[in-house]
Amino acid sequence: MSPTGESSAAVAADFVLRGASELVTMNAPPAEGLGAIAGGALAARYGVIVWVGREADLAQAVDLALDGIDADAEGHCVLPGFVDAHTHVPFAGSRAAEYGERLAGSSYGEILARSGGINVTVAATRRASEEELARLSSARYDSMLRHGTTTAEVKSGYGLTVADEAKQLRAAATPHALRRELTFLGAHLVPPEYAGHADDYVRLVCDEMIPACAPLARWCDVFCDEGAFTVEQARRVLSAGAAAALGLRIHADELARSGGSMLAAELGCASADHLMHATGEEIAAMKAAGVVAVLLPGTSYTLGVPFAPARAFLEAGVTVALASDFNPGSCNCENLQLMISLACQGMKLTPDEALYAATVGGAAALRRDDVGNLAVGKRCDFSVLVAESRTELPYHFGVNLVSDVVVGGRVVVRAGSVCRGSSAPEPTAVCARDAPPEAGGSR
Amino acid sequence: MSPTGESSAAVAADFVLRGASELVTMNAPPAEGLGAIAGGALAARYGVIVWVGREADLAQAVDLALDGIDADAEGHCVLPGFVDAHTHVPFAGSRAAEYGERLAGSSYGEILARSGGINVTVAATRRASEEELARLSSARYDSMLRHGTTTAEVKSGYGLTVADEAKQLRAAATPHALRRELTFLGAHLVPPEYAGHADDYVRLVCDEMIPACAPLARWCDVFCDEGAFTVEQARRVLSAGAAAALGLRIHADELARSGGSMLAAELGCASADHLMHATGEEIAAMKAAGVVAVLLPGTSYTLGVPFAPARAFLEAGVTVALASDFNPGSCNCENLQLMISLACQGMKLTPDEALYAATVGGAAALRRDDVGNLAVGKRCDFSVLVAESRTELPYHFGVNLVSDVVVGGRVVVRAGSVCRGSSAPEPTAVCARDAPPEAGGSR
Repeated sequence: MSPTGESSAAVAADFVLRGASELVTMNAPPAEGLGAIAGGALAARYGVIVWVGREADLAQAVDLALDGIDADAEGHCVLPGFVDAHTHVPFAGSRAAEYGERLAGSSYGEILARSGGINVTVAATRRASEEELARLSSARYDSMLRHGTTTAEVKSGYGLTVADEAKQLRAAATPHALRRELTFLGAHLVPPEYAGHADDYVRLVCDEMIPACAPLARWCDVFCDEGAFTVEQARRVLSAGAAAALGLRIHADELARSGGSMLAAELGCASADHLMHATGEEIAAMKAAGVVAVLLPGTSYTLGVPFAPARAFLEAGVTVALASDFNPGSCNCENLQLMISLACQGMKLTPDEALYAATVGGAAALRRDDVGNLAVGKRCDFSVLVAESRTELPYHFGVNLVSDVVVGGRVVVRAGSVCRGSSAPEPTAVCARDAPPEAGGSR
Repeated sequence: MSPTGESSAAVAADFVLRGASELVTMNAPPAEGLGAIAGGALAARYGVIVWVGREADLAQAVDLALDGIDADAEGHCVLPGFVDAHTHVPFAGSRAAEYGERLAGSSYGEILARSGGINVTVAATRRASEEELARLSSARYDSMLRHGTTTAEVKSGYGLTVADEAKQLRAAATPHALRRELTFLGAHLVPPEYAGHADDYVRLVCDEMIPACAPLARWCDVFCDEGAFTVEQARRVLSAGAAAALGLRIHADELARSGGSMLAAELGCASADHLMHATGEEIAAMKAAGVVAVLLPGTSYTLGVPFAPARAFLEAGVTVALASDFNPGSCNCENLQLMISLACQGMKLTPDEALYAATVGGAAALRRDDVGNLAVGKRCDFSVLVAESRTELPYHFGVNLVSDVVVGGRVVVRAGSVCRGSSAPEPTAVCARDAPPEAGGSR
């Protein structure tokens, strides 16, 4: 109420974004144009969006605090921050050598069987200190932010002991502007010291790792596939995870049609991920159970295997999320913009379907109702492209089209550089030109 | 000779690079490890390399001027600048809308036939002023530099009138740190006003455009393919180009096996480019004539068609160059790092073969003996990766692994940003930390 007793029409804000050529709210599905507003603007307070509309209405609708940030997209396109629902960030070591082997024709399974592959990462991750893993993770989070990802799911799964899984999860939680959803993936593979004794390892996961790691994570995941864990073992792990109040997700039907998606439907997992071998039966079961399909085109690209049947999922009405699967073996890429390109080229998604899957889809896979679109009540997380239209994003591929990123109403990337306390604005900055240099320090 | 009459062993330099984890000189072929020197260093004077060796020998071998630049790669890998031997940079307009059409199944030919496609770019380029084209080109050159390309071939071919082709070539020559080889491609397509009168257009190209444009270019190119120019028309264009003292190159066998490669061999073209439909016969002819195969994996990726038979070319002993084909229609990507990834994934090149093709191969395609490798007498053009080993480059894909770029002994990109007169070093700069901020201004 105003002092005169009349209700004020203006909403109070501490952050305003204007100057967007189009503000792609994602408040409508691809078939309805993604809710893009030409000349759109938004306002936020305390990191949460309080107003979205046309810039022409901004002055009347919003009351920006005197010390608020008045950011200008200077004629560029604004997108919600990407939500990457599947990553394996906190690892140590490089597997560049294996990359050449795979090109020469060795399969994922062959490399694994020679006890190279993922075991190289396990050994390096076990050797690394928590501080080293946190440093490595933080640098990767920087890169994810710079490419427009503002929320990411992050899995453990290279420690494979109680102490090393917990170490990975603590390292993954290192303070950073990137929003994270942590996932315990102790059942990623059977570690070498348990070779031939997978059930004993599953017992360790259920009886010791989950109790120790549940307080550090929100989700429990399992790699259910040929050469990994059986459906029965995966059911035990996920049931123990659920008993520890963890949400459930699953690596399913990546290497073979092996029952993982059906288990996801049975247990009501939030997502089943990979799904290159899913068929109509799996798709129908996932649809009925509300399981989100997390599709990872960078993995198919790297492994040289077919892409998941994305169109079949969409046609069945299953919610599709596009994610990076960023990991040191089968997809060493953290850039969701390239995943959008690969989804268009390899899975025949339309550009708008791919953008929706990388934002709204990712949020659905993580059961987050506060990110993925730009609406009142949502987090003020968005990126500014060096392009006037979202259509440039899959069209102009292989480069980073994100120039500026805002998380919770704070500028965290400006002109391609992550903002720290000491960083000065770049001469080419397009965003938040009036913001103080110290805005948005990410640590 | 020193004052005492003894010859001095030290070579005078005004630029030194030290601190490289590996200096990949490209002075040996892939099978011999690319001439990589662990702990390598180099020195240059007046932009030309005067010494290459192990850093341990640098102090004794090189005498750096007091005001010289002493750059430190700080433990990162150093590569020669990429040589991109096939680009179409100076265009106006966007064809993002067509991108969606193509994903929905329309072929390149279908889009062209509906007089969309390339004609959209022709119309926009004709409308654009020389200054506008120069500004657009300069921004694209910035991006190419930032991704590690230091020499690029740049074609006209969207003007298609005497005045507009010349305008494109003058715009392409806008002052910039990127080294360029300009190519006249008036015979890119038959413009709408000559529809059904291709021979008349060829006459215009030969009799008027080539005389007007030859002083502005080094090369003459022609698009010889189904739906473009016939072998006989291409022969006329290239012969006129040769008569005007232009070197020859050709777009060949991209859309169909249409005789372009054979013509390249017949006329002794420096390169034949695209080559998706080349067979053993074409490969043998090109080998015999010393024609370099310029392969463009980004175009196959975008069009969803098979990759060129790269391994067959290599096995036959043909020199292979990897290039971007950066253009607004069939490959809107200027990043050669992604082309290296695509060549590994799609053409089954080894990472070292792909790196060699993007440096030494590109130089061979442009008949340049001063770029592409790091040896005494060559230009001091290199990039510093944010990686210790070159093997990270195709392994960690979809992101820009180049942090710093030097052209002719001047720092032109630092920590991912193009250096201008006024730009201050980034806090994360890894290269040339002792260089004055004004070093390497690119305009």
